[in-house]
Amino acid sequence: GAAGGGYAQVVPFEDINLHLTGDGHAVSIAHDLLSAFVDNTLYHGNPLDLDPFSITWTRVVDVNDRALRKITVGLGGKENGVPRETGFDITAASEVMAILALVNGDDERSALKDLRAKLGRIVVGTTRSGKPVTADDLKCAGAMTVLMKDAIKPNLLQTLENTPAFIHAGPFGNIAHGNNSILEDKVALKLNDYVITEAGFGSDLGMEKFFDIKCRYSGLVPNAAVMVTTIRALKMHGGVGKIVAGKPLPDELLRENLPALEKGAANLVKHIENAKLYGVPVVVAVNHFPSDTDREVALIEQIARDAGAEGAYLSDVFAKGGAGAISLAEAVAHACNQPSKFKFLYQDDLPIKEKIERIVRQIYGGEGVDYLPAAEQKIKAYTERGYDKLPICMAKTHLSLSHDEKLKGRPRGFRVPIRDIRASVGAGFLYPLCGEMRTMPGLGSVPAGAKMDIDSEGNIVGLF
Amino acid sequence: GAAGGGYAQVVPFEDINLHLTGDGHAVSIAHDLLSAFVDNTLYHGNPLDLDPFSITWTRVVDVNDRALRKITVGLGGKENGVPRETGFDITAASEVMAILALVNGDDERSALKDLRAKLGRIVVGTTRSGKPVTADDLKCAGAMTVLMKDAIKPNLLQTLENTPAFIHAGPFGNIAHGNNSILEDKVALKLNDYVITEAGFGSDLGMEKFFDIKCRYSGLVPNAAVMVTTIRALKMHGGVGKIVAGKPLPDELLRENLPALEKGAANLVKHIENAKLYGVPVVVAVNHFPSDTDREVALIEQIARDAGAEGAYLSDVFAKGGAGAISLAEAVAHACNQPSKFKFLYQDDLPIKEKIERIVRQIYGGEGVDYLPAAEQKIKAYTERGYDKLPICMAKTHLSLSHDEKLKGRPRGFRVPIRDIRASVGAGFLYPLCGEMRTMPGLGSVPAGAKMDIDSEGNIVGLF
Amino acid sequence: GAAGGGYAQVVPFEDINLHLTGDGHAVSIAHDLLSAFVDNTLYHGNPLDLDPFSITWTRVVDVNDRALRKITVGLGGKENGVPRETGFDITAASEVMAILALVNGDDERSALKDLRAKLGRIVVGTTRSGKPVTADDLKCAGAMTVLMKDAIKPNLLQTLENTPAFIHAGPFGNIAHGNNSILEDKVALKLNDYVITEAGFGSDLGMEKFFDIKCRYSGLVPNAAVMVTTIRALKMHGGVGKIVAGKPLPDELLRENLPALEKGAANLVKHIENAKLYGVPVVVAVNHFPSDTDREVALIEQIARDAGAEGAYLSDVFAKGGAGAISLAEAVAHACNQPSKFKFLYQDDLPIKEKIERIVRQIYGGEGVDYLPAAEQKIKAYTERGYDKLPICMAKTHLSLSHDEKLKGRPRGFRVPIRDIRASVGAGFLYPLCGEMRTMPGLGSVPAGAKMDIDSEGNIVGLF
Amino acid sequence: GAAGGGYAQVVPFEDINLHLTGDGHAVSIAHDLLSAFVDNTLYHGNPLDLDPFSITWTRVVDVNDRALRKITVGLGGKENGVPRETGFDITAASEVMAILALVNGDDERSALKDLRAKLGRIVVGTTRSGKPVTADDLKCAGAMTVLMKDAIKPNLLQTLENTPAFIHAGPFGNIAHGNNSILEDKVALKLNDYVITEAGFGSDLGMEKFFDIKCRYSGLVPNAAVMVTTIRALKMHGGVGKIVAGKPLPDELLRENLPALEKGAANLVKHIENAKLYGVPVVVAVNHFPSDTDREVALIEQIARDAGAEGAYLSDVFAKGGAGAISLAEAVAHACNQPSKFKFLYQDDLPIKEKIERIVRQIYGGEGVDYLPAAEQKIKAYTERGYDKLPICMAKTHLSLSHDEKLKGRPRGFRVPIRDIRASVGAGFLYPLCGEMRTMPGLGSVPAGAKMDIDSEGNIVGLF
Repeated sequence: GAAGGGYAQVVPFEDINLHLTGDGHAVSIAHDLLSAFVDNTLYHGNPLDLDPFSITWTRVVDVNDRALRKITVGLGGKENGVPRETGFDITAASEVMAILALVNGDDERSALKDLRAKLGRIVVGTTRSGKPVTADDLKCAGAMTVLMKDAIKPNLLQTLENTPAFIHAGPFGNIAHGNNSILEDKVALKLNDYVITEAGFGSDLGMEKFFDIKCRYSGLVPNAAVMVTTIRALKMHGGVGKIVAGKPLPDELLRENLPALEKGAANLVKHIENAKLYGVPVVVAVNHFPSDTDREVALIEQIARDAGAEGAYLSDVFAKGGAGAISLAEAVAHACNQPSKFKFLYQDDLPIKEKIERIVRQIYGGEGVDYLPAAEQKIKAYTERGYDKLPICMAKTHLSLSHDEKLKGRPRGFRVPIRDIRASVGAGFLYPLCGEMRTMPGLGSVPAGAKMDIDSEGNIVGLF
Repeated sequence: GAAGGGYAQVVPFEDINLHLTGDGHAVSIAHDLLSAFVDNTLYHGNPLDLDPFSITWTRVVDVNDRALRKITVGLGGKENGVPRETGFDITAASEVMAILALVNGDDERSALKDLRAKLGRIVVGTTRSGKPVTADDLKCAGAMTVLMKDAIKPNLLQTLENTPAFIHAGPFGNIAHGNNSILEDKVALKLNDYVITEAGFGSDLGMEKFFDIKCRYSGLVPNAAVMVTTIRALKMHGGVGKIVAGKPLPDELLRENLPALEKGAANLVKHIENAKLYGVPVVVAVNHFPSDTDREVALIEQIARDAGAEGAYLSDVFAKGGAGAISLAEAVAHACNQPSKFKFLYQDDLPIKEKIERIVRQIYGGEGVDYLPAAEQKIKAYTERGYDKLPICMAKTHLSLSHDEKLKGRPRGFRVPIRDIRASVGAGFLYPLCGEMRTMPGLGSVPAGAKMDIDSEGNIVGLF
Repeated sequence: GAAGGGYAQVVPFEDINLHLTGDGHAVSIAHDLLSAFVDNTLYHGNPLDLDPFSITWTRVVDVNDRALRKITVGLGGKENGVPRETGFDITAASEVMAILALVNGDDERSALKDLRAKLGRIVVGTTRSGKPVTADDLKCAGAMTVLMKDAIKPNLLQTLENTPAFIHAGPFGNIAHGNNSILEDKVALKLNDYVITEAGFGSDLGMEKFFDIKCRYSGLVPNAAVMVTTIRALKMHGGVGKIVAGKPLPDELLRENLPALEKGAANLVKHIENAKLYGVPVVVAVNHFPSDTDREVALIEQIARDAGAEGAYLSDVFAKGGAGAISLAEAVAHACNQPSKFKFLYQDDLPIKEKIERIVRQIYGGEGVDYLPAAEQKIKAYTERGYDKLPICMAKTHLSLSHDEKLKGRPRGFRVPIRDIRASVGAGFLYPLCGEMRTMPGLGSVPAGAKMDIDSEGNIVGLF
Repeated sequence: GAAGGGYAQVVPFEDINLHLTGDGHAVSIAHDLLSAFVDNTLYHGNPLDLDPFSITWTRVVDVNDRALRKITVGLGGKENGVPRETGFDITAASEVMAILALVNGDDERSALKDLRAKLGRIVVGTTRSGKPVTADDLKCAGAMTVLMKDAIKPNLLQTLENTPAFIHAGPFGNIAHGNNSILEDKVALKLNDYVITEAGFGSDLGMEKFFDIKCRYSGLVPNAAVMVTTIRALKMHGGVGKIVAGKPLPDELLRENLPALEKGAANLVKHIENAKLYGVPVVVAVNHFPSDTDREVALIEQIARDAGAEGAYLSDVFAKGGAGAISLAEAVAHACNQPSKFKFLYQDDLPIKEKIERIVRQIYGGEGVDYLPAAEQKIKAYTERGYDKLPICMAKTHLSLSHDEKLKGRPRGFRVPIRDIRASVGAGFLYPLCGEMRTMPGLGSVPAGAKMDIDSEGNIVGLF
């Protein structure tokens, strides 16, 4: 991405979490330019007759800032525009970020053209008579494209063993579609025999969206799914211990516990079943920790195989580099060479509620879906406008297969409440919000940033 | 700046207006991280007893967005924090941008240390008992430094003739201190015999702030001032025609008009006098246009010399490159070799009102200053806290020597109203707002961005 | 009520709709005084540790003003208090109005004491640790009592035939408990042999609340229920025509239509059944219009009797005064002399959800109840605080037996959504909001007030 | 006023501070009905093209509620109207209250007609093209008149000695024009030989407005001015002690102090001079307290006479009833029989700034006036619309002859800052706001209401 364009470079790991080549910034500013155009058209006599109450286009910022979730803008008098309630999302939830990741093309020119078209189709609201108002109507999509023109170039980095690795686009899997860019995969496929692409969080989020959204738009067909897990996480799903961010792991997760592992493995089994639903072979990768016992490893291998996986393999790359994952890599290569029977979970013309129902029942294992009034109204309106043909991008916690982070293992019998639905018409999906899922996180009472600093040598400290 | 660090590169001109190496983005996000920390401490029980009504720290975004000038944040219930009135400024007005430009040091390590210290000293508000609350108190300055660590590296570019040119930091001269970074000047001085550094807008803004703020902090002493003007602009100051952004120049400015030029040159004379007040020799550079007549050029040369300048020289670099400014360059070199008698306009310990009065009377040519109640209160509070020792950074229109953009030529007899004063304690200056001067611009009814796009080849169009 | 105290007076009818003796005003100002105390305690350092987000006490005004439904107060700086989201209800929905109507006592002194106690028990919110904060805690209940001390005196007026009639308290039956005051009934019972007291709207609203709330607090037992209906309204419930406020009745309602009447009478039958559920005899009063045909009258008499009513009687008081309702009056007197078997619909100790379920299933004829998240949270919190012992006061449209005004006749198979629940602890009931039911109405595009005026003689015109 | 109409009645004194006959309530609700119409017209498509930013019509409530000073209304979505910044004033500052007090007429019919016309002329804002929008344009003035029709009837009460006393209308003298109604004076003049009418606070507020506003509109000419003072207050103006509401008087004000009295009497002298400016004889009434010494009384008599008053007389009505003021009454009667030379301070066609200047210089004794930008803009706009012909109603503290409550005695050399100006076009005056003068008071940390209650007998306690 960004200004310098794409070039292979060894960057310190912490820089990946900072600005890297500025794609996130380009997304933020392109998004916020459109936001300014929205309020600006209201200020200048509203020539498009945009209904202020119909506006669903927020602003974004790449900071966890709960105070910006709901705000009133345009206060302070005539010169400051029209008072209006709106809010900010985190940049990872921006439709522009989703567009960056879903732009398609066979060369820079066609990719830019697709980017331009997708940005132009973004719907910010409707006229008072209900007609969608787009970024093209607001004459903002050209400028947004200019701001994004370098960001669409995938960023090529290298691992410590000098193998190439791309990093490109950052939609989170819980509040967005959780996959890196189509362009990156296409470039990578031109350069390599095998391309492993990450789909954020589990089969219920990143994988489902990879298959049903990204593959639908890229036309690419996956050969296999690699499911990454840890023995300690599965024991936690089995009811033992509790993993708290920023705190050391509880002792009980470090002790052998075969019953807990067996119980928690129901979670893994569901993930495997989910991948197989799409017709692709599954390989389980178990990130290896010193506390894993042989019996635990054997048990998980057995369970994975029984559930239909091609097998479960230890991955020891943290300790040994590439050498630590040779069997895994061979198993994945083997799986990829099997015939592919990939199919989508749902077809485009299924009604919105049935698409959602299918995801909830077949992928999450739930019993049904409840819609709050705002969601019902949106489904009606979106169907009337023809957006019901779009695939679904669920915003859901990644801490459970269900919408409720407290339900561990393989939850059953739950109903998923849909609070609201948004339409990312430019990116090309509908965006249901499950339960209290938020698109702008907040900071903790001791934010991670409070520990960061530079030392007397100018080195960063406190980033981990 | 930013991720890639500083390296010499030929970049297309339009990229300078886009993300370049991302310094502006780093400033925005470092600034907004502190904003999030401010609201977060209120949310988490307010352990520092920060008075919500005392908070002067806004948020910033690099988009002209009038609707964000005044907003209410923290709405929508308990989980979204504490409701509060606040607003956004444009990134160019951020104290973090000013800090980036004023960081000092003799190597990267000492510069980082100074950056860290300045960020830590930023004052966001006070406790209920009136004690300043800083970015250090909020434990945010370390993380801000991490976000800014690459941005402090000056960006080295090349001209089309392959001479080096740095671009670093972007505080605007009307709403901020209007000068590039101290570090850039220091690096440039190590590499070159002569360094020309731009101070945004006229002697009343960029130059005054260069002398009284930047030189005060850098310890560097200027050898000469180059005053850039055009004959058409001076005729406009003489009451002929009107220059409107985005519209072609009116015909009357393209016709010879010696009386108008003579009248308007009173503006140039005042700028020359201002520079000489500081004890430095002045060279006038006249950007040459085909419509300039010989008699007009001769007149301006005469007036400049009479006003005490070393001379006025045509600059024809737009048409001829470096060859078009050889006499000018020689004149500047000559001026630089004269003995320097540089002195500040005011000393640190002058009271706030007297510093402002001196700028208004001696530099702007006004008769006095009026303070609105908010400004009076701030002067009192800032004096009590010892901020009266800081230099002054006036926020004032660049379209007139006065605060009123309608007063052209060399206005006299006006009084400057000060609406409010802010303290940039980290950057190290006080920040009076003259008249209706705003720190967040708005978009026009046809924003410049509405004309930008990419063409079918992927080239940017409509940027100029 | 109010200043002048209670005295019998012939007042023009329109004055009843204006200020009468000012009880509504006293309610508004007593309510709003408490609102000011709430924000004032936040302003003055919040000594009670009142959680601003817990505050459920709104302000009231006796004007239909939708713009006040949701507001942000305390803006404009430190001297204006603490910014906070809140809103206004219509005075008829004020808990103080409900208290006025539910005050009990055997003389003025005991009534004042009860008023004082009820006002003191009003809960405005909770401390940060969840303890209720009352009007007594805020030291406001005394002043509220002083403002209300005359308003508790029932207003005695006379009919045109000089029979006494009381008018006292005005809670609407859809958004409040819809009954005049207990004190009024008690005074009337001392002065008369028979007292007819109005319970606003149908058996689903005013009657249910009369029995389950007012009788519970007064200890009085009703002897009979008089159900008022019109033949035209029942035809409308049968699917013919549409009654629009401010427009003339459609022709089809003025023509004989026995099938429509029979169909619509299902609505009346359900109301009769509802009254009989409580064990009281029912007399149907049919307000007579010239367009009613003899066959329609006969049909309605038959249906009422078949449904278990003591009979249906024409009331012609509009045309003939008291003489127009002699048979009706005799039938009511006869019904009153039958043995009373009155019983409540539910006992105090039934859980909140079961009380609501009982009202919805047995009175409205619905199938069940759905609770939105806000309602679920409140039920949990109110049960913990012991408010589950209070009776239920449903806020529901009066235009249908269900929550949906479009469902006419005797709707079946519907589920009632509960959006939120409020606690009127001082008045002594819980207050579920069904569907989109609002506690602040709005004005129409041509508000009724736009037609009102005085003519050249000073007479009011346009009130009807 | 209100419902019951006007009748003579002995009411307990505390009731005068409560609802009396409800005029204040009628004013509030008529005012707020117009407020609802204003937002309602914006909601219903804004057919009058009312510029939301031009709206100066607030809402009112009769409670000291600082949190309502500045609010944002219309939040929460489309059904709640158009978001907008506005606020509440105290009812005493309502233009409707001013209209009630300034309605003129010779009988009920002509008074109602004048009321109707004045209400219709109320200007709430302007169209986008700058044309005033009135209550008549909004079709609200008729309904407001209906709500006010009884309130215009003066309320006749009796003193303990059974002499008649009217109480009618309540505009405060600091934030409004501070005089009872014209109709009341006219009724009183028909019934009595002498009518004493109160003008709230001193000669700088109630008296100036009585002469320049009320007399201008009533056509009545005063015969004499009675200036009420106390010896203790003048000693306080002389720099001794401090009077704090709700606290006992400091001892030093209860001890004889002739030098302090002489010094403070400069305040009284200025008030006497002010009255004489208008050409009317002045009688000083000294409310007598036991601590006043004979020498103090003699001194004040001397000073008053020297300043041109007809004399100073003790008033002892608190202790002795009417008998305590016989000499005073005789002196007033004597003064009334002298020839009247009454004249206004300024003529209608004096420009706005000159009218204000005349009040500030001649009545307050100030040196000049400063206008903040908002005030300057209003003066320009009001002059263009022809409102410059209206008299001036200054909103100013009553605690000093100046705008600054800390300046006691007879302040000199001050300049009065005018923050803003409002136009009460219906009532017929312009309304400058001096300094920080507010039109909505706040409650103290222990509000007066916190002490009020009823005792076990039902009596009010804590009202004084």
